[in-house]
Amino acid sequence: MEENRNLKFYAVSELPQMAVYGRTVEGADPLPLFWNHSGVEIGCDGSELWIEVETDCSFHEPWIATELDGCLMSRMMLLPEGGNIRKICLFRSMTPGQVKYAKFYRELQAMGEDDATHILVRGYWTDGNLLPVPEKSFRIEMIGDSITSGEGTYGAAADTDWLAMYMSSSRHYGTIIEKALNADVRVISQGGWGVYCGWDNDVRHNIPSIYEPVCGLATGAFNEKLGAQKPYDFSWQPQVVIINLGTNDCSAFSQPPFPDPDTGITHKQHLREDGSFEPADAQKVEDAVVAFLQTLRGHYPKAHLIWTYGMLGYDLTPVLSAGVNRYRKESGDSNCVFLNIPDTLPEDYGSHMHPGYASHEKAARVLIRYLSGKFGLTVKPHTGNL
Amino acid sequence: MEENRNLKFYAVSELPQMAVYGRTVEGADPLPLFWNHSGVEIGCDGSELWIEVETDCSFHEPWIATELDGCLMSRMMLLPEGGNIRKICLFRSMTPGQVKYAKFYRELQAMGEDDATHILVRGYWTDGNLLPVPEKSFRIEMIGDSITSGEGTYGAAADTDWLAMYMSSSRHYGTIIEKALNADVRVISQGGWGVYCGWDNDVRHNIPSIYEPVCGLATGAFNEKLGAQKPYDFSWQPQVVIINLGTNDCSAFSQPPFPDPDTGITHKQHLREDGSFEPADAQKVEDAVVAFLQTLRGHYPKAHLIWTYGMLGYDLTPVLSAGVNRYRKESGDSNCVFLNIPDTLPEDYGSHMHPGYASHEKAARVLIRYLSGKFGLTVKPHTGNL
Amino acid sequence: MEENRNLKFYAVSELPQMAVYGRTVEGADPLPLFWNHSGVEIGCDGSELWIEVETDCSFHEPWIATELDGCLMSRMMLLPEGGNIRKICLFRSMTPGQVKYAKFYRELQAMGEDDATHILVRGYWTDGNLLPVPEKSFRIEMIGDSITSGEGTYGAAADTDWLAMYMSSSRHYGTIIEKALNADVRVISQGGWGVYCGWDNDVRHNIPSIYEPVCGLATGAFNEKLGAQKPYDFSWQPQVVIINLGTNDCSAFSQPPFPDPDTGITHKQHLREDGSFEPADAQKVEDAVVAFLQTLRGHYPKAHLIWTYGMLGYDLTPVLSAGVNRYRKESGDSNCVFLNIPDTLPEDYGSHMHPGYASHEKAARVLIRYLSGKFGLTVKPHTGNL
Amino acid sequence: MEENRNLKFYAVSELPQMAVYGRTVEGADPLPLFWNHSGVEIGCDGSELWIEVETDCSFHEPWIATELDGCLMSRMMLLPEGGNIRKICLFRSMTPGQVKYAKFYRELQAMGEDDATHILVRGYWTDGNLLPVPEKSFRIEMIGDSITSGEGTYGAAADTDWLAMYMSSSRHYGTIIEKALNADVRVISQGGWGVYCGWDNDVRHNIPSIYEPVCGLATGAFNEKLGAQKPYDFSWQPQVVIINLGTNDCSAFSQPPFPDPDTGITHKQHLREDGSFEPADAQKVEDAVVAFLQTLRGHYPKAHLIWTYGMLGYDLTPVLSAGVNRYRKESGDSNCVFLNIPDTLPEDYGSHMHPGYASHEKAARVLIRYLSGKFGLTVKPHTGNL
Repeated sequence: MEENRNLKFYAVSELPQMAVYGRTVEGADPLPLFWNHSGVEIGCDGSELWIEVETDCSFHEPWIATELDGCLMSRMMLLPEGGNIRKICLFRSMTPGQVKYAKFYRELQAMGEDDATHILVRGYWTDGNLLPVPEKSFRIEMIGDSITSGEGTYGAAADTDWLAMYMSSSRHYGTIIEKALNADVRVISQGGWGVYCGWDNDVRHNIPSIYEPVCGLATGAFNEKLGAQKPYDFSWQPQVVIINLGTNDCSAFSQPPFPDPDTGITHKQHLREDGSFEPADAQKVEDAVVAFLQTLRGHYPKAHLIWTYGMLGYDLTPVLSAGVNRYRKESGDSNCVFLNIPDTLPEDYGSHMHPGYASHEKAARVLIRYLSGKFGLTVKPHTGNL
Repeated sequence: MEENRNLKFYAVSELPQMAVYGRTVEGADPLPLFWNHSGVEIGCDGSELWIEVETDCSFHEPWIATELDGCLMSRMMLLPEGGNIRKICLFRSMTPGQVKYAKFYRELQAMGEDDATHILVRGYWTDGNLLPVPEKSFRIEMIGDSITSGEGTYGAAADTDWLAMYMSSSRHYGTIIEKALNADVRVISQGGWGVYCGWDNDVRHNIPSIYEPVCGLATGAFNEKLGAQKPYDFSWQPQVVIINLGTNDCSAFSQPPFPDPDTGITHKQHLREDGSFEPADAQKVEDAVVAFLQTLRGHYPKAHLIWTYGMLGYDLTPVLSAGVNRYRKESGDSNCVFLNIPDTLPEDYGSHMHPGYASHEKAARVLIRYLSGKFGLTVKPHTGNL
Repeated sequence: MEENRNLKFYAVSELPQMAVYGRTVEGADPLPLFWNHSGVEIGCDGSELWIEVETDCSFHEPWIATELDGCLMSRMMLLPEGGNIRKICLFRSMTPGQVKYAKFYRELQAMGEDDATHILVRGYWTDGNLLPVPEKSFRIEMIGDSITSGEGTYGAAADTDWLAMYMSSSRHYGTIIEKALNADVRVISQGGWGVYCGWDNDVRHNIPSIYEPVCGLATGAFNEKLGAQKPYDFSWQPQVVIINLGTNDCSAFSQPPFPDPDTGITHKQHLREDGSFEPADAQKVEDAVVAFLQTLRGHYPKAHLIWTYGMLGYDLTPVLSAGVNRYRKESGDSNCVFLNIPDTLPEDYGSHMHPGYASHEKAARVLIRYLSGKFGLTVKPHTGNL
Repeated sequence: MEENRNLKFYAVSELPQMAVYGRTVEGADPLPLFWNHSGVEIGCDGSELWIEVETDCSFHEPWIATELDGCLMSRMMLLPEGGNIRKICLFRSMTPGQVKYAKFYRELQAMGEDDATHILVRGYWTDGNLLPVPEKSFRIEMIGDSITSGEGTYGAAADTDWLAMYMSSSRHYGTIIEKALNADVRVISQGGWGVYCGWDNDVRHNIPSIYEPVCGLATGAFNEKLGAQKPYDFSWQPQVVIINLGTNDCSAFSQPPFPDPDTGITHKQHLREDGSFEPADAQKVEDAVVAFLQTLRGHYPKAHLIWTYGMLGYDLTPVLSAGVNRYRKESGDSNCVFLNIPDTLPEDYGSHMHPGYASHEKAARVLIRYLSGKFGLTVKPHTGNL
């Protein structure tokens, strides 16, 4: 392959026209992509466009996806090959003079288990001009667990390892909603975590506890230096926040006690003999729901808050909806709703006992219908290509 | 047509093997079919089978449907032609000696607006033997409004009269569930009514007020004499009760006040300036939910109670789920859940601005998934023929 | 039920504004509905509309369906009850002054096996005015066998009697095409028959032999008198003729010989040892295809002729397409094509081992796509209600 | 990222257990992947597996996809980065001791336009054992044009460049068939070519002319040396050959004449004034069909030959089916059929005016139904994840 000698490098700091998706450190160069679905997009009228990134990992390698003109083109494992700085070609051999929109985004949740995992965007190489992307005026923040991390959207039903490669946002409900409503969708998610505790009764594993910094899940010195633990400024104001938490809080009731190594205290959500939730324990979840809604309202005074739930069963609906309702009553704030989304049909499971793409599609349809109705949005017809 | 001279008449009272569906007066001959989806089914090894019914109406004529071996065969308006007693052929010219199962059921809700409307089953005419129907061991009671009356499941989107013919159970979600789970589904429904009040703020139009008699909606001397207003004995115990009420309670908030002609009191559910429900009015609905769940539990000590909602919008979810949750908390009874079903997509509307068959299909899938999971039931695959 | 004393009778002969569907005797009063999907439609601004028909049958009773404003309302067995003349209510209790379009059509193929089977339309009773129906400018004739008689579109997969009630046009591919393209669809069909011979090698059972009279399948003195055997005048010129024949010609190769009782000659289409068609026998089918296309072109000089095939297997494709191609070559007429439609999936079978509604839906989609593309027609979106 | 020091290299020549898919030079090391969907698969019980490849290109870069346990994991542009030899990680951090099956395949047709384009498989790096893949006993060869090159299966409807990235086999009908029938599917395809001539009347662009060598489309010294132009030995015997050619032969009739630069002769397929094919020109296509079927039968004495057509319109059906029928008649070989597959619905188009994934899905269902019926194969249910 002959190198295209006309390629010129443009650093992130020189590109105010670059669209930045997902919560990150504003103005950083290189720009860290902390969260699932975080990414960048740019217009380009050249024949060729590369993105330059810096990446590394230990156990959990990052995956990324690329789109061209709004359609998925590529999905790949991103490893440091021949050094931590890599160039990835977004397109080549295209008609110069025509503007193409190229998107590059992270397919992996923030990985608290692996401090080395990171993707930093350094800039672009092109033989053309880099142009702004039409701004998306509808903004959605999605907060969730493994479902919102897209776990199960890739991989066979028989695959049961807990692995980065089974997670995605390229086939998850957020992206389906994003495309249907021409929205900018941000994802804050961590598999196994809940609103009150994790699937295993680990009370440290609750999303609210890591919600305030830019990326509370990105730990270690490297992420610290990137600014992951800095307070997030919440200047990006979404019209809608979708919270899909509770699935792990529900599991905890059926799991063994968890001795917290930090405090020595053992935690356990109990079921009563009749199989129902111990009220005092359910109350903890309800309280966490109320508190988290208060937090969210503090940051997003005008956003419509949707607590959604059901893709892996409806058991915790009473507790979650009680929390939503108590928040509404106590605050007098009715701009907040609870909404079930359809449980996954047996034939729609993907890998690791999680909803596959078909299930994400069905959940997305319910949310798209709700949002288009409430906000008077036009729904772009679904086509065969993602 | 030459008359089949081998046909013999068997009165309902001679047919203990006849399966009776829907809430009615036990042991009555003729047997009244008061409610939507009420009906009878029998096995027959003859070549020909007729059902003899007595019927009448004033404004709102009854509609009925027939099934053969579990598949819809016929749907028709049932008018008194040449007298109130009519014979309807369920099949003819079939192979004698083979057992066929023939079902006949009402497609119209109980019609409080028309005291003359009735269908009474008198018996069968056949040249064969009448045989028992395999019993359905799974039983579901569905309580609802126009959605559960199947309004919109027949007719064009442009049709907007409020008419008997647009209602059905042959294409409604109850029947889809019934066939998928091999269940016996009973329907108690009235269009325009709610759990607290009707769509127009008429507080008399609440389902709990008519729930205790055999058919509290069937009024007038004729129905009285049939036993419609007698207390129902609740000896038929369903495993599941699905309550789909709230859509009309929600409408009332946007409708003009209703002066109750009986009491002279004017009723109105109010919206606040920000469009939210006036808390004191929402409380009335919540209280009605709690009270109705208590009532249902009184009659059905072991049934799983599902309050479901959403096919015409999710606005009242907070109020309904609050009621369910309060009932759970106050009673300590956790065998009761709230569950949203998908809102109707714009392309899935039927007549009179109501969910069409496609929307009923989607709602049914969510409920079938829930019930099959919870009760370990096998789901019969859906085929092209209803 | 109080009789509506404002109803007035209008005989067919007084109703030039009545739309007549299907091939029949022009100007007849009463008007015979010989073929499946034959019917009448009229606009009416009254509150109530009845159709008066004369009917009878011996073994094979007719079935009929009614539509209101283009949507299926009713489907029923039509028996002479209390005399051969019956009134069937198409609607009642509707808003007077608004125009409703009511259609009444036959659901049963012409029944050569039962000379007594007939439906004659005598007129309407209404309290309003009878108005013309907007004319459909796109016209399609469909010629076929049991598939086009809609056999299997009603009834359970387990039902295997050969019976009138399993046939329909209310759920068959012709009707789906009709509604999607706003077309006037005529059906000429007979179960078990082919283009050359019937499923059982009976060479008398070929559609071309009965194609020229108004209804060559309607035999006996009664039908004779109605004019069934008169030459049809072919003044109704369709833009498209769809011929779906060959499925029974194919079966004949696997069936025992048939001794023709009329001639004493035994007929048999043979398979060779390798399972392929004996060329001389296949040639007979091919010749019949060519001859029938010539016949059709003679009657319809400008119609686009589509030979379609496949809903019950593709085995005869080579023979049928060879016939189509030879016709094209010999005649120089390229306005004639062969087109496979999708074979029925195992889960899409209806009764009597025939395609169910889901299969008809898939076949219709292929034909709608073809016709809308070729003729530049707008496709009306499919909704949940038939 | 710490390097896994336990990785050992195994060259292709040491791996008889490696499954090879697609037509290539048997026993070559490195192993060239000439055709779309050509690839390799291996079992591995290590924690980590890399494939080592050699690659290059000029204008048209190769794309590849990877599968794990039969599900798509990754799709990417394959460029020589830091040298022509690259390692691509197929999985890492997995449970050692469990066998995983990893597949790597080409997403791009053979690229006659770019002699530099190539992918050679050199071997694997792993810390485990490399194990055989369960053999697929059902084998299908698919021969086609841009449709079979998967053009349009990636990319937006608005994208109209002719580019490598819009082609794939990861979302094309061959792969859907492969997974449903657990088959080994080989693809021989070239966009723009036909059975007689290319879309632009270039008679050199016919698939039969390049069918005999291993990869007649791979030209230039490099490919020559790899053995691309060596005669192919046809020892791999498929049960089925699907030929999907004719779409470009059809286009040629509407395109300007093509002056062949090699011969100076100008070629043009003509339409007559009435829009039909000039018979003499159609005859050339028919002859080419017959000749190609003879060629295929020569190589595959027992294979069932299916000429399929229709995803971009049915216009050439008469000519193609005439060719199939003439071949059957002249050869006496009835193990060869013609079969239409559904035309692409307007909403199912992908990029470059070609069928998108939804259209490929529908075509695949027709072929799966046909093959499973004919060969008595079990169909694996379709799940949400590809």
